[in-house]
Amino acid sequence: QGILERLDAGEIVIGDGGFVFALEKRGYVKAGPWTPEATVEHPEAVRQLHREFLRAGSNVLQTFSFYASEDKLENRGNYVAEKLSYQKVNEAACDIAREVANEGDALVAGGVSQTPSYLSCKDKAEVKAVFRKQLEIFVKKNVDFLIAEYFEHVEEAIWAVEVLKESGKPVAATMCIGPEGDMHGVSPGQCAVQLVKAGASIVGVNCHFDPDTCLKTLKLMKEGLQATKLKAHLMSQPLAFHTPDCGRQGFIDLPEFPFGLEPRIVTRWDIQNYARKAYDLGIRYIGGCCGFEPYHIRAIAEELAPERGFLPEASEKHGSWGDSLSMHTKPWVRARARKEYWENLKPASGRPYCPSMSKPDGWGVTKGGKELMQQKEATTEQQLKELFQKQKF
Amino acid sequence: QGILERLDAGEIVIGDGGFVFALEKRGYVKAGPWTPEATVEHPEAVRQLHREFLRAGSNVLQTFSFYASEDKLENRGNYVAEKLSYQKVNEAACDIAREVANEGDALVAGGVSQTPSYLSCKDKAEVKAVFRKQLEIFVKKNVDFLIAEYFEHVEEAIWAVEVLKESGKPVAATMCIGPEGDMHGVSPGQCAVQLVKAGASIVGVNCHFDPDTCLKTLKLMKEGLQATKLKAHLMSQPLAFHTPDCGRQGFIDLPEFPFGLEPRIVTRWDIQNYARKAYDLGIRYIGGCCGFEPYHIRAIAEELAPERGFLPEASEKHGSWGDSLSMHTKPWVRARARKEYWENLKPASGRPYCPSMSKPDGWGVTKGGKELMQQKEATTEQQLKELFQKQKF
Amino acid sequence: QGILERLDAGEIVIGDGGFVFALEKRGYVKAGPWTPEATVEHPEAVRQLHREFLRAGSNVLQTFSFYASEDKLENRGNYVAEKLSYQKVNEAACDIAREVANEGDALVAGGVSQTPSYLSCKDKAEVKAVFRKQLEIFVKKNVDFLIAEYFEHVEEAIWAVEVLKESGKPVAATMCIGPEGDMHGVSPGQCAVQLVKAGASIVGVNCHFDPDTCLKTLKLMKEGLQATKLKAHLMSQPLAFHTPDCGRQGFIDLPEFPFGLEPRIVTRWDIQNYARKAYDLGIRYIGGCCGFEPYHIRAIAEELAPERGFLPEASEKHGSWGDSLSMHTKPWVRARARKEYWENLKPASGRPYCPSMSKPDGWGVTKGGKELMQQKEATTEQQLKELFQKQKF
Amino acid sequence: QGILERLDAGEIVIGDGGFVFALEKRGYVKAGPWTPEATVEHPEAVRQLHREFLRAGSNVLQTFSFYASEDKLENRGNYVAEKLSYQKVNEAACDIAREVANEGDALVAGGVSQTPSYLSCKDKAEVKAVFRKQLEIFVKKNVDFLIAEYFEHVEEAIWAVEVLKESGKPVAATMCIGPEGDMHGVSPGQCAVQLVKAGASIVGVNCHFDPDTCLKTLKLMKEGLQATKLKAHLMSQPLAFHTPDCGRQGFIDLPEFPFGLEPRIVTRWDIQNYARKAYDLGIRYIGGCCGFEPYHIRAIAEELAPERGFLPEASEKHGSWGDSLSMHTKPWVRARARKEYWENLKPASGRPYCPSMSKPDGWGVTKGGKELMQQKEATTEQQLKELFQKQKF
Repeated sequence: QGILERLDAGEIVIGDGGFVFALEKRGYVKAGPWTPEATVEHPEAVRQLHREFLRAGSNVLQTFSFYASEDKLENRGNYVAEKLSYQKVNEAACDIAREVANEGDALVAGGVSQTPSYLSCKDKAEVKAVFRKQLEIFVKKNVDFLIAEYFEHVEEAIWAVEVLKESGKPVAATMCIGPEGDMHGVSPGQCAVQLVKAGASIVGVNCHFDPDTCLKTLKLMKEGLQATKLKAHLMSQPLAFHTPDCGRQGFIDLPEFPFGLEPRIVTRWDIQNYARKAYDLGIRYIGGCCGFEPYHIRAIAEELAPERGFLPEASEKHGSWGDSLSMHTKPWVRARARKEYWENLKPASGRPYCPSMSKPDGWGVTKGGKELMQQKEATTEQQLKELFQKQKF
Repeated sequence: QGILERLDAGEIVIGDGGFVFALEKRGYVKAGPWTPEATVEHPEAVRQLHREFLRAGSNVLQTFSFYASEDKLENRGNYVAEKLSYQKVNEAACDIAREVANEGDALVAGGVSQTPSYLSCKDKAEVKAVFRKQLEIFVKKNVDFLIAEYFEHVEEAIWAVEVLKESGKPVAATMCIGPEGDMHGVSPGQCAVQLVKAGASIVGVNCHFDPDTCLKTLKLMKEGLQATKLKAHLMSQPLAFHTPDCGRQGFIDLPEFPFGLEPRIVTRWDIQNYARKAYDLGIRYIGGCCGFEPYHIRAIAEELAPERGFLPEASEKHGSWGDSLSMHTKPWVRARARKEYWENLKPASGRPYCPSMSKPDGWGVTKGGKELMQQKEATTEQQLKELFQKQKF
Repeated sequence: QGILERLDAGEIVIGDGGFVFALEKRGYVKAGPWTPEATVEHPEAVRQLHREFLRAGSNVLQTFSFYASEDKLENRGNYVAEKLSYQKVNEAACDIAREVANEGDALVAGGVSQTPSYLSCKDKAEVKAVFRKQLEIFVKKNVDFLIAEYFEHVEEAIWAVEVLKESGKPVAATMCIGPEGDMHGVSPGQCAVQLVKAGASIVGVNCHFDPDTCLKTLKLMKEGLQATKLKAHLMSQPLAFHTPDCGRQGFIDLPEFPFGLEPRIVTRWDIQNYARKAYDLGIRYIGGCCGFEPYHIRAIAEELAPERGFLPEASEKHGSWGDSLSMHTKPWVRARARKEYWENLKPASGRPYCPSMSKPDGWGVTKGGKELMQQKEATTEQQLKELFQKQKF
Repeated sequence: QGILERLDAGEIVIGDGGFVFALEKRGYVKAGPWTPEATVEHPEAVRQLHREFLRAGSNVLQTFSFYASEDKLENRGNYVAEKLSYQKVNEAACDIAREVANEGDALVAGGVSQTPSYLSCKDKAEVKAVFRKQLEIFVKKNVDFLIAEYFEHVEEAIWAVEVLKESGKPVAATMCIGPEGDMHGVSPGQCAVQLVKAGASIVGVNCHFDPDTCLKTLKLMKEGLQATKLKAHLMSQPLAFHTPDCGRQGFIDLPEFPFGLEPRIVTRWDIQNYARKAYDLGIRYIGGCCGFEPYHIRAIAEELAPERGFLPEASEKHGSWGDSLSMHTKPWVRARARKEYWENLKPASGRPYCPSMSKPDGWGVTKGGKELMQQKEATTEQQLKELFQKQKF
């Protein structure tokens, strides 16, 4: 059954987690470029991560083709004419995802995301041509459906949806925005409406913000759609990092991004809480993005097991709400084998010399750099300004 | 070259990271039992993790045979006569480690750890028989050297070393103790002395405490050896969790163990700091234990690259001190591409409603439960006492 | 010169600090009732606190008549027919304030605040009668101007202003509201407009929120006045506690209120920052409320000394930005004798087992208890509901 | 009855709180010099603070003569030949204390503390001469007993005790040391023994460390005395700041000293906990030092009211364990009117951008600056060294 049949029937669809962060920690992706050449260089590592998400309960395996548009690979210097061409990288991504999907009952989704072409002010036709090149591979490899994800500008997301719709396959679209809306100031409600009008059957958010913030944004999207009587399924794929302190552009601007985010990593119990709230809000495509490891996805599947009627395979190695601790030799550890304990735990950081929140760096910068919004304290401002003058978009 | 030849020549040997925690998050190990039946059930997952550590710079691959003694597997209910016998689990562990070691230049080490037999007061002969059974497999599979690790009682560790020495292979021994010493109150210095006298060529600590605490314990071990003019190499494999607040039995007693430890996870920069301090203290076998992911091991290899003269394979996907960020589109993110930035960052937890330290649960309980040392506040004490009366060691 | 002459001339007027909190700590006011019978019982303690504020730079001494309306004193059980009648308490408050004001160059302001009569739904005439009784004493004692302060409902504040205007003296009006507005949902901008229309020459906020939050509210008031082209002076008297985590009703609902607020106490440097921001926002009547001790008021006077051209008397015992430390025997303490040090210090709490933010208790309850807005987590809700059923407004 | 009669009879004697910090906030003492010229300049302010401590339950009023030795006043530039001579300052201190003591049932204690003469290596005779000058005034004014307090070096404290004993009055001696002992490394146990041998009838600690740390030091003192079979009464006057993170020289070296200590201020409930623990340890002279306000002293008196049989006068304005809140209009505030609530509260700082602990600045410097013990991180070390070279002891 396809993605829309499942969602139309009221099923809960569980997405997968974050590839670039997980594979960075495993040694196969470089932070900074964040490109997916591992599909060609180390397919066994990509395959293993897909398999872990499948075991954890994912119903969708996204091809690991993030930032694999031709212009991005060129821009980031990962494009090597033959060996690591965008075609090779995307084709390998499709093959690996399909191979693992066939080990279970999962769908394969091909994805496109925001492009350097758009940020450097190329026109609609040029940007669409970039998306179309990736799409051709997804069509050739016959993925089950398509996702336009990680867009900061709804204009570009719309162009992506329009291209993906040319395939005739179902299209989902998620933006990496918070409750304040996209980088041009378009509200989440308006973004959702425009994406559905452009042809998306599923809309939502991914990346940049923590689960709580993403659910706030999704609530606004839902209200926007309701106000215009448009129908679409909702989709949520947040970070697995706590980011109550981030600004308009999310975790990128936090001083800890990307190499000091560890104390922000959410627990499995945070995720169960998120899954329940997402479900209660009417979201039925529930997954994750950067920071989501297989055990986070399993936490979604476990929380919603009563509704779905089954547990994922990986729950063989996990007791519900810590009950595998009931065999521990220490009585005070056995006392942790209960839901109430983990639900109420306020976990300590072990870092008494660190604060609990940070001030985000940077400005909110719109396309073309016109609207600068200072978020940073005076002392670093000058330094940032100097850097800004040197920057090339 | 064998482990002792390398260490005697002054080489730095990099250990690997923690299998049970990493594979628990990937869905292959159950928290609570923490047993390694994945070597039989899901060899590809174990192989992949070994490979990642190898790429990250590990010179030693430890067979994934933690808690795989016959009595432990029986005790934890994972022993299934034929399919998951301790022989099968240990043999598979050896085969997988050797297979991956051959992909690079790594040694294979077979390991034994503390047993239920000792805790339930079996005598020396019985406990030694348990170690001997695992040893027979390591000998048959011809591992390169042996490690007795994760012992809370030096008495049991000595017995393990004595058994392992029967093989004629080099023996390393690490205890999971802090500066206060073992559970009978034997000081770290005395533990080190006794282990060397029993035949260990390498001694040190693993697990239970964070890098800083482990280095304090190792300093005491070093001083103990110096005072008795004994020579041995030093070995350090700490947690990758900050635990400044734990008691005598380490992270087990922290309320966050094992499902809420996320905010305590150390960064790669914390590890570079640890690697440098360990090196300066004269430790030459430097690795990690629970919580150490491949990128943490890579951080050891990168910090000590000047001394070693080379970087690990996985550094292809990592810029030193964040320099891969120098290509980022945002100037304030580019400004993070420097050592001083990451060295001085005090990362926020994003958890303003959580404390930074916890009070450990439990008592320090020695073998036989005789010396009870209350560490917990009055309110939970009664509850713990009740649990204690029901417990069976 | 009167208050309006000073403000009209562009002078900065410095208010005083919080009497009930300061005298509670000194042993003369009871938390809970918070009534000012100390004016009769211990005039020397009240006189001394006035004197300290005067030395610190206060240009206005408010009579210590908070919660000294007849209905409040009766309600709280402090009313004792002869000895502690509201007349005696208010008269003594006026006498003491005037006595100390005459030691310097300060004005005396008589104040009224919200009444039990309003909360128990008495009608306009009855509530006004309560205010009028206090006013009669202020007129008899010839205070210099009048302040209607600490109102959660703009309706009641308007009635107070109307009564106070009957005296012909200048009237200031401050509400204890945050950016969300009053308890009926009237926005800060609207509150300001209505108070000015009712006759207030000075409007603003006091109590309930920290300096940053109060300045946000004042910015909204200023914008409200600008939009309607009304002119009034702005006045700010916030808490000296950090309350970034409080809800609509401010610090009362924080779990730390009123006996665990210590870690929230602001430093003198926080106050200098506040004074500067208040000045930059165009506020010219700058003082404090609960938690403000004399040294906090001095910090306002010191920060604005360049604009005012003089320092307060108490600055004889204070070096600007810590420069009195330049004589310390320890070099690292001497190194603290500079502005940059104190401006950038992030002071630690010394409380690693405590969080940095709290969830407020309670609901936002409007007059009559009709709109209940749960802010508290599920676990305590039942307990609160039970309490609610027993409550009498 | 004299101090020794009271203590010998098993009475609890409650000390007073910290004058220099309280009067600094009130505007009468300058941080840095910390000298008590207010006794001459503003006697009414000193009198009022004495009175507040008396009302709060203090049985001893210490003359406000801290740092009023002749050499100190000269050194700090507060000495003005006639008007503010050490004679005038000390005499006024005695007169004010006696005047207020006569309002109740309190004893007056004259105090001496460490001198610049000792730190600049003057000999025994010279240092003793300094103490003798202050003593002459205390004898002339006939104080009830004498306290040698705030000594970092036991050698100087012994000299002080020897001088004070010349008067024939009872002598108490407290050092501002932690569990590590005095600045020459003399252990707390040895300090206590030597002070008793020198003639002190009461020994203990004051200032520099928080209540918990002070009680640890006192436990060591008690054990030292027991080991040598010496008898003496124990006395405890800690800071009212949480300082779990300070080094050997206590709060002076914390980066927050002295103008950013607010978030460390202890609550009244912390003090009740301290009073109980002090009592249980056998301490019978229980008071406070810097940071102790009248309400903190009242908390001692309230906690020990069951043992003493009465409450202090200021408890008229305080409900035990918050019970004055039982009249509050909000049910969730009424719910705070109970012991269990305040005992278990973990108060938030309202400062999410601040850490919970700090690294102390500085070195532990002994007399003559010989033993330098670096406590500070590498980055600031150079800066400190430069400062150190310029310093004059």
